[in-house]
Amino acid sequence: MNEAFPDIPKIQYEGPKSRNPLSFKHYNPDEVVGGKSMRSQLRFAVAYWHAMRNSLSDPFGGGTAQRPWDDGSNSVANAQRRVWACFEFMEKLGVDYYCWHDRDVAPELNTLAESNAAFDAVADELEKAQKQTGKKLLWGTACLFSHARYCQGAATSPHAGVFAYAAAQVKKAMDVTHRLGGEGYTFWGGREGYATLWNTNMKRELDHLARLLHMAVDYKKKIGFTGQFYIEPKPREPSTHQYDSDSAACLNFLREYGLLEHFKLNLETNHATLAGHTMRHEMQVAIAANALGSVDANTGDELIGWDTDQFPTNIYLTTEIMLEVLRMGGFTTGGLNFDAKCRRESFEPVDLFHAHIGGMDAFARGLKVAHAMIEDGRIDAFIKQRYSTFDSGIGAKIEKGEVGFAELEAYALANGEPLLGSGRQEMLENLVNDYL
Amino acid sequence: MNEAFPDIPKIQYEGPKSRNPLSFKHYNPDEVVGGKSMRSQLRFAVAYWHAMRNSLSDPFGGGTAQRPWDDGSNSVANAQRRVWACFEFMEKLGVDYYCWHDRDVAPELNTLAESNAAFDAVADELEKAQKQTGKKLLWGTACLFSHARYCQGAATSPHAGVFAYAAAQVKKAMDVTHRLGGEGYTFWGGREGYATLWNTNMKRELDHLARLLHMAVDYKKKIGFTGQFYIEPKPREPSTHQYDSDSAACLNFLREYGLLEHFKLNLETNHATLAGHTMRHEMQVAIAANALGSVDANTGDELIGWDTDQFPTNIYLTTEIMLEVLRMGGFTTGGLNFDAKCRRESFEPVDLFHAHIGGMDAFARGLKVAHAMIEDGRIDAFIKQRYSTFDSGIGAKIEKGEVGFAELEAYALANGEPLLGSGRQEMLENLVNDYL
Amino acid sequence: MNEAFPDIPKIQYEGPKSRNPLSFKHYNPDEVVGGKSMRSQLRFAVAYWHAMRNSLSDPFGGGTAQRPWDDGSNSVANAQRRVWACFEFMEKLGVDYYCWHDRDVAPELNTLAESNAAFDAVADELEKAQKQTGKKLLWGTACLFSHARYCQGAATSPHAGVFAYAAAQVKKAMDVTHRLGGEGYTFWGGREGYATLWNTNMKRELDHLARLLHMAVDYKKKIGFTGQFYIEPKPREPSTHQYDSDSAACLNFLREYGLLEHFKLNLETNHATLAGHTMRHEMQVAIAANALGSVDANTGDELIGWDTDQFPTNIYLTTEIMLEVLRMGGFTTGGLNFDAKCRRESFEPVDLFHAHIGGMDAFARGLKVAHAMIEDGRIDAFIKQRYSTFDSGIGAKIEKGEVGFAELEAYALANGEPLLGSGRQEMLENLVNDYL
Amino acid sequence: MNEAFPDIPKIQYEGPKSRNPLSFKHYNPDEVVGGKSMRSQLRFAVAYWHAMRNSLSDPFGGGTAQRPWDDGSNSVANAQRRVWACFEFMEKLGVDYYCWHDRDVAPELNTLAESNAAFDAVADELEKAQKQTGKKLLWGTACLFSHARYCQGAATSPHAGVFAYAAAQVKKAMDVTHRLGGEGYTFWGGREGYATLWNTNMKRELDHLARLLHMAVDYKKKIGFTGQFYIEPKPREPSTHQYDSDSAACLNFLREYGLLEHFKLNLETNHATLAGHTMRHEMQVAIAANALGSVDANTGDELIGWDTDQFPTNIYLTTEIMLEVLRMGGFTTGGLNFDAKCRRESFEPVDLFHAHIGGMDAFARGLKVAHAMIEDGRIDAFIKQRYSTFDSGIGAKIEKGEVGFAELEAYALANGEPLLGSGRQEMLENLVNDYL
Repeated sequence: MNEAFPDIPKIQYEGPKSRNPLSFKHYNPDEVVGGKSMRSQLRFAVAYWHAMRNSLSDPFGGGTAQRPWDDGSNSVANAQRRVWACFEFMEKLGVDYYCWHDRDVAPELNTLAESNAAFDAVADELEKAQKQTGKKLLWGTACLFSHARYCQGAATSPHAGVFAYAAAQVKKAMDVTHRLGGEGYTFWGGREGYATLWNTNMKRELDHLARLLHMAVDYKKKIGFTGQFYIEPKPREPSTHQYDSDSAACLNFLREYGLLEHFKLNLETNHATLAGHTMRHEMQVAIAANALGSVDANTGDELIGWDTDQFPTNIYLTTEIMLEVLRMGGFTTGGLNFDAKCRRESFEPVDLFHAHIGGMDAFARGLKVAHAMIEDGRIDAFIKQRYSTFDSGIGAKIEKGEVGFAELEAYALANGEPLLGSGRQEMLENLVNDYL
Repeated sequence: MNEAFPDIPKIQYEGPKSRNPLSFKHYNPDEVVGGKSMRSQLRFAVAYWHAMRNSLSDPFGGGTAQRPWDDGSNSVANAQRRVWACFEFMEKLGVDYYCWHDRDVAPELNTLAESNAAFDAVADELEKAQKQTGKKLLWGTACLFSHARYCQGAATSPHAGVFAYAAAQVKKAMDVTHRLGGEGYTFWGGREGYATLWNTNMKRELDHLARLLHMAVDYKKKIGFTGQFYIEPKPREPSTHQYDSDSAACLNFLREYGLLEHFKLNLETNHATLAGHTMRHEMQVAIAANALGSVDANTGDELIGWDTDQFPTNIYLTTEIMLEVLRMGGFTTGGLNFDAKCRRESFEPVDLFHAHIGGMDAFARGLKVAHAMIEDGRIDAFIKQRYSTFDSGIGAKIEKGEVGFAELEAYALANGEPLLGSGRQEMLENLVNDYL
Repeated sequence: MNEAFPDIPKIQYEGPKSRNPLSFKHYNPDEVVGGKSMRSQLRFAVAYWHAMRNSLSDPFGGGTAQRPWDDGSNSVANAQRRVWACFEFMEKLGVDYYCWHDRDVAPELNTLAESNAAFDAVADELEKAQKQTGKKLLWGTACLFSHARYCQGAATSPHAGVFAYAAAQVKKAMDVTHRLGGEGYTFWGGREGYATLWNTNMKRELDHLARLLHMAVDYKKKIGFTGQFYIEPKPREPSTHQYDSDSAACLNFLREYGLLEHFKLNLETNHATLAGHTMRHEMQVAIAANALGSVDANTGDELIGWDTDQFPTNIYLTTEIMLEVLRMGGFTTGGLNFDAKCRRESFEPVDLFHAHIGGMDAFARGLKVAHAMIEDGRIDAFIKQRYSTFDSGIGAKIEKGEVGFAELEAYALANGEPLLGSGRQEMLENLVNDYL
Repeated sequence: MNEAFPDIPKIQYEGPKSRNPLSFKHYNPDEVVGGKSMRSQLRFAVAYWHAMRNSLSDPFGGGTAQRPWDDGSNSVANAQRRVWACFEFMEKLGVDYYCWHDRDVAPELNTLAESNAAFDAVADELEKAQKQTGKKLLWGTACLFSHARYCQGAATSPHAGVFAYAAAQVKKAMDVTHRLGGEGYTFWGGREGYATLWNTNMKRELDHLARLLHMAVDYKKKIGFTGQFYIEPKPREPSTHQYDSDSAACLNFLREYGLLEHFKLNLETNHATLAGHTMRHEMQVAIAANALGSVDANTGDELIGWDTDQFPTNIYLTTEIMLEVLRMGGFTTGGLNFDAKCRRESFEPVDLFHAHIGGMDAFARGLKVAHAMIEDGRIDAFIKQRYSTFDSGIGAKIEKGEVGFAELEAYALANGEPLLGSGRQEMLENLVNDYL
């Protein structure tokens, strides 16, 4: 170890007054907030594809990232060396989990058989590193979007051979996730959508997508994998229209095809806002369906129309996310996976630390603020009071289904204009600032 | 009759060469396209709220519309006079259907009882006018969004008294729709959403919304109303977030609460694009769920972030809409309702004619183009061919559920890289222009 | 006095621990920050049109605002009574400035002469109230967008009579502003744009707009008004395209027509973000042209495509605004005008207090945070260092214009790849959180 | 020749009834429209970077494009071979012009000197091919955005060495453009913007940008290059905020730094819409400043928030573009450069033909429709009439500057409400369809 980041010491909690940027000012892993340690509440994960593999290229320019431990080759040896850089990085940051796609950790080679063998060889190394460090796999997934064969879809490709290839790749990625004790497995339909409806049979494609997911459910039982399945919503990128565009679209699909009991959602802020929703909205939609599983912790720039995958540092955002997490009773299999990349201009290895420290500190503050809000109770009390006409009388009868249109018309005719109170949005927004 | 628009003759079909703007150049009601008359394929409707009631005010200025037949009062007499202006308008345009909200056709008065009585008095007049002209009601609905009592929701209001009031209003609007032989009844949740999550219990609100819809289903049976129920999706306006934000959100909600069999969707182009979807996407989503009911025919400006409700004149748009309508076998209870208003700058009565003529001609062309595309068959053939690997062999087995991950892995290992063909989007886009 | 808000006491500074929502927790008017009192740094203003006149209607529903002191009539007496409500409101809030449009403070009557007389009568009352309370007029303006006559533009109307009417209205509004000692006068071209280019001669319209502004410059000299002229950028609302769409568009126009020396910009956050820019970007563009004049303090919802005019409570936003204000040396004639309205659901008079308290406290915090950042100096030092290669050597020569392409090619050939350092965005974003 | 596209014959005009997709149905190069041949009106150009170099990778996946004539190496020999593929492509399409960046046509090698030598070697080949075919260079440009050294800007880099490198690269690209008889030279500031204002000195960066452009003006004189300089506006991509965000921002910058006489704009539809403007708006803004130079002919998807660079096939769009081109008197040095790429799914060489044929046919139709509109004159007459109150009387006095506020107030007091006519947007939109 200690080869990839030789100059960087383990990041320590030094408290809010510290002027050392390579310290935590708020994240104190074993500090207890709301009865549980911060580490167990936040369950941070490093995203292998960004931290280890993102060259920081963009559509207008090549990679800038300096990764001295990486020789740039597509070899198994390079992939294995990279494993140790990643685990060193997690160790120095004090992050307990990581996530990967098959093609992040291991190279895609000339044939599926070769790629599978390479994957196994890297999995050996991951297993070794997990044992040595105690780090765990939050979830694994298969990359069904980068290779040219998937350019028209994977499960929704018009070509049956591509479907078969995708199925084979998922099978293998599930096998390796299972072997490494992964707590979940994620499906992000990177190419499951369409470029144009002029060449597309949407219904047939969705039937195929459901078919693949049912196969995955079957295979999960077969191998005894008990991790949680996640679907990750995202609108409009990279395809013109992604099928899993937001929480509601995913839930609708899962209900239609009888899959809801087998899947939860892995939600991401940048995907939520691209779909026109706040992250909190998406979380509440998922929670209401008992389907919030995990969170991809990042942020976007709402003035920019694509997935910028920035590190989250906005305390309002992290507060809202942690508020929902606390309200659903905390994460079970899920966690906060930093699906975020350094800006293309931030190309030095130390920027990876700055970025993750910033995100971790922001979520630590969010957790504390959210906890304080719940403890204080003023916001919850306001909401409870606001709906109190439904706690008794005609409101309670409505909720219980004891009245219909006839009774309600009679009630309305008898009672005149209802006396509504102010929604008090402005007062509540001020109150939120009190906790910061 | 003939009082509201004294200078305007009945609009006649004069063919594409006509230089008379007050003529149809493409809409020829009895011309047969695809085995049915244009009138029966297109089923145009006038939207009472826009054509008769929209003053063309906007958030920055008052009304501009000149409506000489309207004395501006909130009286029943004025409302009754307006009925005849509307039917004269429909007669001169040759439109067979109309749609209304309760509060468009009749005034809201001091009490619910008075408002109901006024509504009945206007319904008498509507019934008379329908009989006299043969015009029909495409659908009715209740306005649950304009009055201050609904400012925090109707079915999703935090106040039970508001829920009761809304229920009473829907009951009455259903009664009148039924009486007038309406072919459908629409639910647009204008205030069913939230201004801020800081004061909102989303789950409880959605439970209430479902409750109201179940009551409506019950009431429909009770009174023997056989028209179709529609839900109309719209995102983000007037609330910060509308619950019925798009087709998928509506379908998810309907499935969750056991309502899907009772409702279809009433889709609108401007709502689709505000939600980030094309109208065609929304239509295909609805059709796949057997839930496309009716269409609000308008368009938005994609560079503008709100519902501009413009008259549709883009032939590409009308072609795509009619293509989907033809593919689902044509409208049954639904139709093309011009939920569109003149620009605030187009304030003269004749502008109402220009606007509707433009929309009707554009849809007539769309119908012809769509029909030609289907007859010609090149696009359909391309799509069919594109998915042909699923018609036999491994693809057919996938579709039939005869194979799982193990078999597909074996297939992929044995068969190497699948040979995918080009998606040919550019060729298809050129081809579309051939039909224009 | 004390009639409009009988139950509300003067808002006092009670410090951050106060649990009284009707108190300031951060705004302490006479507290010195950066050598000047908070009141003199922030120069808050109440926007008459929102605080006193906004009924909180929206495109889908009527007004909800409860304003017991207002009898709803369009009379001069009602307008005069309203003056005292406004000044009572300012007194209780401790706000020193206000802003108005002519038609906010006084009614528009049947003729221009009558409207002018009414305006004078209300101005008498405003003058009395200013004297009695010491409150001052930050700026006045003429409403050239609400009346139907302006529906196709005011200075850019296709009708010369409308141009004349607009000129007359501006003249009168300048007269009254001058009389009341207004420190500025604002031009917001509410209808200066187009609905469609199909009916528009853009060049001719812009020539007319410049003509009106030149007339205003002439008239200003003539009457000896020494206040600052402002132009307020805003994109795409209420017209399809506003001419003054953002800072750059305004500056380009002012330069083209020789008006730049006479105008500064009045910038608004919600307008900036609708134009696709951050408020900070717009401020820096204006400052670079020595043209930042005043600020309309509000915020929008970046997921919503229109001007929501919300009260600003986001500390990041208020910090960035105050940072730019401090860097330009503070306001001179300008200030922070709360061009913001309560949500339609927040309809009680006390909500006006919650809203303004929230905004004032948020800007007080922003001022303190911005001041701390500047004092601490780490961010400024980073930026200075980042450009240091231009402080000497070839960089200094470039800046001085001492080298051209030939010398620079020779330099590049001789020196090889430049060694660029990381942009450190993530580190800086973390650092920003340190000051909160 | 005839090696790159062996199966594809020269594309011929076969008229609208042709069912051969590899034919022109509307573009007939020597057909005269409005007194000039279509070829001389449209001046089509192939964009080397897309047609020859775009691998069709995207942020989520690698390249898919099949380019059998390209061996994938970064060698000069490969670059020279590619030249002949491009000219064969132009020959078969019948396109007269092409455009390039330095790094498209020639490889970037280890040092600037080597890159320059490679560029010269490829320029030899280009010169040969131009002579042999008669094809011409519409404009050249330097790629100052792909290489990592430019990740924080080229002319606006914080590093003086990068500025020098950029200057050297522009010098060389101007030299080669001059040598090849290029009719113009374009500046697109791909990285001239910022990632975050937290690390940026915007004013200093803009000063540097102006400095580089002034050096280019000097160098142009020095070498006697008489082609037109263009600046290409684009908002928000690839940086967080591009300085040249739209026409107005560019014109403002050019005016501020005394550069307007030396530059015209190269406008692109997809950039216009990303900036919130229609292409037509941007064109009119440029034309009003006598600064419309050339057009990058493509389109975006208005529901997608980034530069999709699609081939334009929408007849409404091409009509509007050609209308503005005709109104400014046609192109002089500029033309229609297909800055557009095939979709990632359209990866076969023949798709390049489909794409360009579609664009060329769409612009041919646009030209004809625009010409017909102008000939017919109804739209122009409507506009002229709409402003006719400014042709005489008080309106003429306003335009001539003969009246001020006093006279206009007197006029307004004397004349009462102006009588405005309808804007007739709906009638005009219908009329537009008449010409299609």
